Amino acid sequence: MVDFKALDDTIQQNLQASLGELSRLCAQPSIAAQNIGMVECAELTAELLLARGFEVQIMPTKGFPVVYAERKGRTDRTLIFYNHYDVQPPEPLELWDSPPFEPALRDGKMFARGVSDDKGHIICRLAAIDAFLQSESDLPCNIKFLIEGEEEIGSLNLPEFIGDNLDLLAADACLWEFGGVDHEGTPGQVAGLRGICYVELTVRSASLDAHSGLGGSIFPNAAWRLIWALNSLKGPDEHIRLPGFYDRVLPPSKRDLELMAQFPDMAEEYRRTYDLSGFLKGIKGGAELLREEIFSPTCTVCGLTSGYQGPGSKTILPALASAKVDFRLVPDQDPEEVVLQLQNHLDNEGFHDVEVTYLAGENPARTDLDDPFLHLVVETAEDVYGVPQRILPMSPGSGPNHPFIHDLKVPVATAGISYPKANIHAPNENIVIDNFVSGVRHTVRIMAEFSKP
Amino acid sequence: MVDFKALDDTIQQNLQASLGELSRLCAQPSIAAQNIGMVECAELTAELLLARGFEVQIMPTKGFPVVYAERKGRTDRTLIFYNHYDVQPPEPLELWDSPPFEPALRDGKMFARGVSDDKGHIICRLAAIDAFLQSESDLPCNIKFLIEGEEEIGSLNLPEFIGDNLDLLAADACLWEFGGVDHEGTPGQVAGLRGICYVELTVRSASLDAHSGLGGSIFPNAAWRLIWALNSLKGPDEHIRLPGFYDRVLPPSKRDLELMAQFPDMAEEYRRTYDLSGFLKGIKGGAELLREEIFSPTCTVCGLTSGYQGPGSKTILPALASAKVDFRLVPDQDPEEVVLQLQNHLDNEGFHDVEVTYLAGENPARTDLDDPFLHLVVETAEDVYGVPQRILPMSPGSGPNHPFIHDLKVPVATAGISYPKANIHAPNENIVIDNFVSGVRHTVRIMAEFSKP
Repeated sequence: MVDFKALDDTIQQNLQASLGELSRLCAQPSIAAQNIGMVECAELTAELLLARGFEVQIMPTKGFPVVYAERKGRTDRTLIFYNHYDVQPPEPLELWDSPPFEPALRDGKMFARGVSDDKGHIICRLAAIDAFLQSESDLPCNIKFLIEGEEEIGSLNLPEFIGDNLDLLAADACLWEFGGVDHEGTPGQVAGLRGICYVELTVRSASLDAHSGLGGSIFPNAAWRLIWALNSLKGPDEHIRLPGFYDRVLPPSKRDLELMAQFPDMAEEYRRTYDLSGFLKGIKGGAELLREEIFSPTCTVCGLTSGYQGPGSKTILPALASAKVDFRLVPDQDPEEVVLQLQNHLDNEGFHDVEVTYLAGENPARTDLDDPFLHLVVETAEDVYGVPQRILPMSPGSGPNHPFIHDLKVPVATAGISYPKANIHAPNENIVIDNFVSGVRHTVRIMAEFSKP
Repeated sequence: MVDFKALDDTIQQNLQASLGELSRLCAQPSIAAQNIGMVECAELTAELLLARGFEVQIMPTKGFPVVYAERKGRTDRTLIFYNHYDVQPPEPLELWDSPPFEPALRDGKMFARGVSDDKGHIICRLAAIDAFLQSESDLPCNIKFLIEGEEEIGSLNLPEFIGDNLDLLAADACLWEFGGVDHEGTPGQVAGLRGICYVELTVRSASLDAHSGLGGSIFPNAAWRLIWALNSLKGPDEHIRLPGFYDRVLPPSKRDLELMAQFPDMAEEYRRTYDLSGFLKGIKGGAELLREEIFSPTCTVCGLTSGYQGPGSKTILPALASAKVDFRLVPDQDPEEVVLQLQNHLDNEGFHDVEVTYLAGENPARTDLDDPFLHLVVETAEDVYGVPQRILPMSPGSGPNHPFIHDLKVPVATAGISYPKANIHAPNENIVIDNFVSGVRHTVRIMAEFSKP
């Protein structure tokens, strides 16, 4: 029998050392988008794993390397931890109260870029391992780590890496890189992730800008071509007009609807935070809002650029225009299929001059809501938080869970140390130290329960 | 009888002094858009006029001052010269072969910001005056100068200035601020200018950007709202959909069509310069291209900006989006009426969230093609260039000729020193010295002929 009292005591005794390691890991920049400190951070991550007696490999990909590690445990069950050592760019720097790569403790929190997303979760898993090694001298199950360096830039090379290493990575379940509590302290389980298809649409109508007085009535205008092409994708009714786009969309099940009904209505919170006059499609809030947020695929213009954008007037006819467009996908849509649908649609509508660049894609994927591992993670939360995790059937966000669920064929569940005010991807990213301790305590319970025959 | 041989000799003898004054005037920056050197340049312009015995006033407006000057001549006829002392910003500086405010002589040309547009024309008129004063000791007619400081920023205060000073400015004819020869050396007359209505459309859909994963299916998106609003203005058929927009449009007359038929086909030149695949509305070139270029009103998107515009992907839902839109107008359209049509159209189409900011407007205006002064200017060119000016019924560009023609009630004609490679508004702006001399010689002939009873 596992002695959780002893494990919890060890976690508490180790806390300063764990936070010291977290601080050291956060002090090492690892900004994938800017290629800053990536090799150094992979090596530091490997060092932390070696110190726990793991066999560690820094494995190349076409992009940044993967840190892979494994160590045997008392049983034949294998749990794989998915994490990432890369972080978001820290900009805008002027909005940080302390420098992003100089971790600072204030008010029971630690502030640093990556302290929640995702270095705090790496150290959370290591702290759980430390507790077992010190309290019981071995691990209750086999542990593998897959720590990639490209999560913040779309995990471009991860599906291929997993596909090429199915035997090495073989496991019975996967504990995901994020998790935590909501603003009321209720722990949450996120049982799936939407997919994404992110493209750039570019129009070049001439080799150089013209004077708008000269060319306005006779020259093609890149900005107009882009506007008309975008307008052909979606109108104010929000219906996405790519033929076949909705063919694979699975509606939420009765169980999904029941789970979503457990969540508070976010309408007022959204209205206040974003100063919105209302929601799309006449939605007022409640379960309808959450259902729409999660189970509707989207087509979002994330950016537009063309011609003159400064103050006042400048009379040019732009030769170049481009838009960033983000499709969020739900099971069983496929980003590569959506790119083809988009290209065919533009061709059929006469927009041969619109170039499509596929910048990032992730397939949507969900863990079976009846999966025993998912329930194990949900229920072990109760001993730490007083209540089991509340299950969200799918996140509106995206991530690389698809190759784990569909290629490695493991259930994926989430548990962690974060909370809504963690400011991930934003200035003053932080964790609450108490949440960190809870996350480690939950992790040891997941490991112990998972290891039972 | 005027002795043109004596005048021409005087112009030639004075050439170095005239170029010295031009160099001095160009060395004084006067960038209206950046409020650099404006008062200093107005004072220098006034000094040059005082030196010729003009009564000079630097007259305030709500923006930069107008330099006004007058001097009596031998007859009661009054000619007003319209010019401007402001220049375009010199950027991009790195593309200049010599500094923009250090005038340089090379290859029979002078290079400097403003040397053609419009300081060369100011000195051209002064050199013509010098020729009369030295050769004949007086002027053949009354001369007035209206030299404004806001032409490059839309002449915002000029219509009101003219309206407030009709008696002071009263004249029989106006010689405009530009003119010159085409790429074959043929002198040109531009008998009108299109109008312009320049607006910015802005949508703010929220107080801050949202994560596209979160809000994509439920939050209003400023970029989409802007795209749909713009799409409602004009489709790929190029028809502008504002109700009433075309009501006041006057088609070209038979005379206009005859005049346009005299011009070379620019299609191949445009295709080569801008690397165009073709023209709008299936136009191939020739008179049809020129007719469309001049006599069709336009709606041009000059710029678009929203959300993320950097490299790669960033998953945001933009709270703010805006577009610069330029309508070129033909007689008898009115920019203030177009703004009202635009606002009404957006309201009627449900785009109450699109804010319209009116940035600049000029009414279109044409000089009567049978006007005697226009013909005087056209025909006096022959003695200088060997051929009379070729008349373009209207320029596709815009300028503040409307208050001269319709408020001051004077015919406006063009003659000057420029040429197609003058690079006005661009790096390495220049004039050909020989063209300068021709422009001065043409100006003295205009003055002499105009002064005949």
